Amino acid sequence: MSAARPPVGAKAPPGGSATAAGVKRGGTMHAARPPVGAKAPSGGSATAAGVKRGGSHASALDFPAWMSDRQAQVEAALSRWVPFDTPAGLGEAMRYAALDGGKRLRPLLALAASEAVQGNAEAALRAACAVELIHAYSLVHDDLPCMDNDVLRRGKPTVHVRFGQAQALLAGDALQALAFELLTPPGRALPQAMQAALCRLLARAAGARGMAGGQAIDLASVGKPLGEAELREMHQLKTGALLQASVRMGAATGARVPAAALAALDDYGAAIGLAFQVVDDILDVTADSAALGKTAGKDAAVGKPTYVSLLGLPASRALAGDLCARAHRALDASGLPGARRLRALADLVVHRKS
Amino acid sequence: MSAARPPVGAKAPPGGSATAAGVKRGGTMHAARPPVGAKAPSGGSATAAGVKRGGSHASALDFPAWMSDRQAQVEAALSRWVPFDTPAGLGEAMRYAALDGGKRLRPLLALAASEAVQGNAEAALRAACAVELIHAYSLVHDDLPCMDNDVLRRGKPTVHVRFGQAQALLAGDALQALAFELLTPPGRALPQAMQAALCRLLARAAGARGMAGGQAIDLASVGKPLGEAELREMHQLKTGALLQASVRMGAATGARVPAAALAALDDYGAAIGLAFQVVDDILDVTADSAALGKTAGKDAAVGKPTYVSLLGLPASRALAGDLCARAHRALDASGLPGARRLRALADLVVHRKS
Repeated sequence: MSAARPPVGAKAPPGGSATAAGVKRGGTMHAARPPVGAKAPSGGSATAAGVKRGGSHASALDFPAWMSDRQAQVEAALSRWVPFDTPAGLGEAMRYAALDGGKRLRPLLALAASEAVQGNAEAALRAACAVELIHAYSLVHDDLPCMDNDVLRRGKPTVHVRFGQAQALLAGDALQALAFELLTPPGRALPQAMQAALCRLLARAAGARGMAGGQAIDLASVGKPLGEAELREMHQLKTGALLQASVRMGAATGARVPAAALAALDDYGAAIGLAFQVVDDILDVTADSAALGKTAGKDAAVGKPTYVSLLGLPASRALAGDLCARAHRALDASGLPGARRLRALADLVVHRKS
Repeated sequence: MSAARPPVGAKAPPGGSATAAGVKRGGTMHAARPPVGAKAPSGGSATAAGVKRGGSHASALDFPAWMSDRQAQVEAALSRWVPFDTPAGLGEAMRYAALDGGKRLRPLLALAASEAVQGNAEAALRAACAVELIHAYSLVHDDLPCMDNDVLRRGKPTVHVRFGQAQALLAGDALQALAFELLTPPGRALPQAMQAALCRLLARAAGARGMAGGQAIDLASVGKPLGEAELREMHQLKTGALLQASVRMGAATGARVPAAALAALDDYGAAIGLAFQVVDDILDVTADSAALGKTAGKDAAVGKPTYVSLLGLPASRALAGDLCARAHRALDASGLPGARRLRALADLVVHRKS
């Protein structure tokens, strides 16, 4: 009761059109289909191709093919790891929330970062799925009536519409636990120290000083003007922390990665984390709802502070470009020969049309 | 909407009497004060006293003193680790949920199990707090209107009554993440393999095949008759998994614990996990609300299946006694000389009056 955020705008009924209904506000990426015609790598390093990885030759392919391959790999792994056979239909709600969803940006970042450091492929796939499960649970909880009260996501009824609020709450809770379960397989598949490092990074990014904290700021900021510093802090926590953690976790699957390279990847992660949100705000006013897959202009309509409302459109575009350049410079500075997928992902984040 | 559990009985308004209001149904332990006059150890092993631990001589004291000392230690650690300085008041809601609460049975089990295996004291305290944070978050979410819709817990307004539903949801989410954060401190304070093992145990106990799964069964079972096997499965997951994990996590703080001892501790954990619920059901019909700190007879009033309704009171009492004896035998079989605190905790679980 009380501090619940007021529902944002009128909602389409379940089963309504995915493109026209108010599905989601800023902070998430949610194309219903795998991106078609994604950008080719821009300036990929000529010195070394990505690392050959167990059973996959995709790293020799160009970026769209790499991306499709990795998205399929993540989808298959999530389908394997998010359980069917749980009591009382809970697994069904979890799978509904986690499968068949979005561009899988966070998993792609984790996988690309792991390739950049020639990391452990099994650990990378687990990290990719774990970070996606945290993202998925946050969407389930964020959609609940006491939060954003959204009825559609990616063109489907939201989890609580489909399964009831209580089951949605539990499914989100169980998805968070599952993320840490994926990172700590029994046996000797992953080094114990790597398991601990991955849990450490994910727990911090998900918690009160990360994603959950950013959501609390967002909640408290409804109807209050935010300055750029406050807006930046909110987004750094709400969206940026998990994006940056995706890169960090990918990097943590490597052995003996130089500290300078890790610092450079951190800078890369911070830049694209912020760029993601700036571009979200730009698209909110420039793209139409059909391209966006959600209601355009929604943030402005409810008076939510955005980069565009604070800086204007031209300065926001310039900021996005600057952040992309910073991300590229960080990769150059990393000294990592296999960073070209990360470079292409930065371009994707900044130049996406939805 | 839809599958939300109907509120159970009429609720007292915030600020109402803690003893008479409908605060909580079975599955949790929630004395508002540290227990006074708790049982002395029954048949504590004469062969060895508990292990002396850094800075504390409490293990040489008798059980009530040991318990008070450990409860204070857990309270202080939680107060140190559940953060104040988080954005938008989220930490305040988290602290409200986690501090000043209950008997701390789960932490006591973790600490006692660690003492039984002469485990790492820092790891034990972190495990104790982590398992309590999972318990605390589950109560916050369980109290939400879409679940049990409870307005009072331990005589205080529930978290959503005090802070709003959205903040309660986020506080619960952040408490879960914090549990894993506590288990993975940076630096060399805890062995990496121990951190991974603790996360592994906690994630499984909290998730779809543990606590969250048990809650889903509970949710689905409203108004449906359950047989004893189904009732047992629900409780094993909903309450038992986390109680057993408390013991396992404490044991995981030891080095080179024999497999047979670990198996015996597992059997101990399973026995007291179930005993806890059987006793809860007995108290629901035998204790008055004042002694219980919650509405007596509540489960029966809403037609929830309980051990008493299935087996009758005498057979339920016999079952509780059998489970206590099984827990004691498991400790005897463990060959662990320092298990007397675990023995006393089994007695506490079975002979408690609230």
